[in-house]
Amino acid sequence: MENFAFYNPTRVYFGKDETGRVGKECAQYGKKVLLTYGGGSIKKNGLYERVLTFLKSENMEVFELSGIQPNPRISSVREGIDICKKEGIDIILAVGGGSVLDASKIMAAGARYNGDPWDFFTKKAAPTPGFPLGTILTLAATGSEMNHNAVITNEETEEKWAVVNPAIFPTFSILDPVNTFSVPPDQTVNGICDIMAHLFEQYFHNTPESPLQDRMNEAVMTTIIEYTPRVLHKGEDYDARAVIMWAGTLALNHLLESGVKDDWSTHNIQHELSAIYDISHGAGLAIIFPQWMKYVMDIIPHKFARFGNQVWNLSHDGRTEREAAQAAIDRTKSWFKEIGAPVSLQEVGIGPERLDEMAEKAVSRGPLGSVKPLYKEDVLKILQMCL
Amino acid sequence: MENFAFYNPTRVYFGKDETGRVGKECAQYGKKVLLTYGGGSIKKNGLYERVLTFLKSENMEVFELSGIQPNPRISSVREGIDICKKEGIDIILAVGGGSVLDASKIMAAGARYNGDPWDFFTKKAAPTPGFPLGTILTLAATGSEMNHNAVITNEETEEKWAVVNPAIFPTFSILDPVNTFSVPPDQTVNGICDIMAHLFEQYFHNTPESPLQDRMNEAVMTTIIEYTPRVLHKGEDYDARAVIMWAGTLALNHLLESGVKDDWSTHNIQHELSAIYDISHGAGLAIIFPQWMKYVMDIIPHKFARFGNQVWNLSHDGRTEREAAQAAIDRTKSWFKEIGAPVSLQEVGIGPERLDEMAEKAVSRGPLGSVKPLYKEDVLKILQMCL
Repeated sequence: MENFAFYNPTRVYFGKDETGRVGKECAQYGKKVLLTYGGGSIKKNGLYERVLTFLKSENMEVFELSGIQPNPRISSVREGIDICKKEGIDIILAVGGGSVLDASKIMAAGARYNGDPWDFFTKKAAPTPGFPLGTILTLAATGSEMNHNAVITNEETEEKWAVVNPAIFPTFSILDPVNTFSVPPDQTVNGICDIMAHLFEQYFHNTPESPLQDRMNEAVMTTIIEYTPRVLHKGEDYDARAVIMWAGTLALNHLLESGVKDDWSTHNIQHELSAIYDISHGAGLAIIFPQWMKYVMDIIPHKFARFGNQVWNLSHDGRTEREAAQAAIDRTKSWFKEIGAPVSLQEVGIGPERLDEMAEKAVSRGPLGSVKPLYKEDVLKILQMCL
Repeated sequence: MENFAFYNPTRVYFGKDETGRVGKECAQYGKKVLLTYGGGSIKKNGLYERVLTFLKSENMEVFELSGIQPNPRISSVREGIDICKKEGIDIILAVGGGSVLDASKIMAAGARYNGDPWDFFTKKAAPTPGFPLGTILTLAATGSEMNHNAVITNEETEEKWAVVNPAIFPTFSILDPVNTFSVPPDQTVNGICDIMAHLFEQYFHNTPESPLQDRMNEAVMTTIIEYTPRVLHKGEDYDARAVIMWAGTLALNHLLESGVKDDWSTHNIQHELSAIYDISHGAGLAIIFPQWMKYVMDIIPHKFARFGNQVWNLSHDGRTEREAAQAAIDRTKSWFKEIGAPVSLQEVGIGPERLDEMAEKAVSRGPLGSVKPLYKEDVLKILQMCL
């Protein structure tokens, strides 16, 4: 096991009807709330009205910033910070998926900073902690509700970069599975691909003696595979939505990576894809991950073989370790296909034109990953395998 | 899954050499530190001297309270609070196992309270949050290093009661497996019995649709069973000590119980045993748990059967569910025996004389548990089965 530090102060309120506590929770921090959300799906499903009612019952003054995009942009963040500063906002309440949450985290970090929030990404400045941020999650995917990560796209530079800093944990997060009932199947699938990819990033590593991390990760992966058909079959299956929602949080609240060397090269490659093409994060991950697996397989074949056995329930009988590893990777790809995710760039209309540019950008801050450090030519090969 | 709230702000520093950061961590909170510890084993193994050196290199003024007993007493807590108040202590640093940590948690809670700390147990008052508490763990067992529980014995009333309150989370905890190298086998076993018992309390429940909680719990149990022979064979096996240490923390940082109805009746019965007889907590749990399992088995036979299969690797072939459940319980008892724990009251010299009194006391605040609510006659029967 590797040494690690673990710290996660987010308060989580999980379950049916927990949304009802949002007014009282927010009111603890002041009177002025900035409500942030995306394209308006919360208006269609009634959540927007309910949240407003809860906030107003505590006499909160509500300001709004809507239209935060998937692959959220630094321009939205700047807009939110301007409102916080101009109106003297006391707490930001993000209602949405990872994009809304990530953008709101950087708004909170920037609300008391006298510079441009992109500085946090270029490391010109560190995020300022302490500005209250509540979240109501509406999509199981990024784990943003209980972690200190935020990924933002700078549309001017076509860069999609991450901040990982303890200053940006949400203060509290409300995880009410009912709020994910109306997520359509394609978005549900994107979220699930993202969750699985988070688990993969932390599962495929070189660290010896990590039985707790490996088995707990397998526990979450196995559960997702078991429950995915249920949420796709019936969006209003409370128990299945609840399991997938909590799985998404556990997949990236940093517990599973504590004590192992995680990888994250696939995520970094994917960020280049969606910075240029604006495809969904989950789709990009489903395309790239099986190819990354193939590319690094021979470094940790035992881990891929074990993965096949423990997670996919594949027998090792009559197979070499390498064959078992290959079978596990094939099964991963076929599962992505089964649940409706794309598994090639062609399927999402991306050709070879800009692969070189993406590979170049992906390694602009150094080689990626830890299982096998990936340089430009490695990234390019993986992207070519994705065609 | 059940609704739940999860909140755990303790900072954990895990691994070899992490002890070295204790001076700088403590110095963040002020100059005066109260160092609390137990019977002096930390003087024998050199940890005491090292901690003093680290604290003094930051010019901390060190006060001491030693002699905190296993099954820590409210009188020790009162003593610590007196020092905090008299000397104007800025931070308490607890170096030890669960007993030292639990006592220090209540000292921290009481350092700014103008009444008697037993009030927190009788619920006359709520613990005051915010007094800094650091810990250096020296025994993998109670999980106290990353939770908001403390169990204290009132020696005057022979009551062993718990406080569970977010005010008493340690501020930070240093988990350096090297600090457990010199724990002798019998104490290592007690700790492991305690850890397994925590997992059992959260695993045997009636909550449907809890695959994440169940599988993650199984991951931890399976790992403990795998690594216990190694720590018993060689106390200085770093990787094995590390795995057991982190397992102990995960077993009771409230993650695994989040979303299920945990039980805790066995712990409550055990508290009565050790309040009167001063036997080790782990030993008491190893004696009582298999009998509790038998007593409630027919309510959730499927869970016990699954436990046998997933954790003990027992085949169900040719067995009814009830037989499989029984086999799992038998295996649990034989494992406790194998690792050197007692499995009957007779082995620890306890006869039937005071069972009735213990049963009476155990339910003095209402029936125990959730799998099957236990009344006095149930507790008495379980205790009699333990003879």
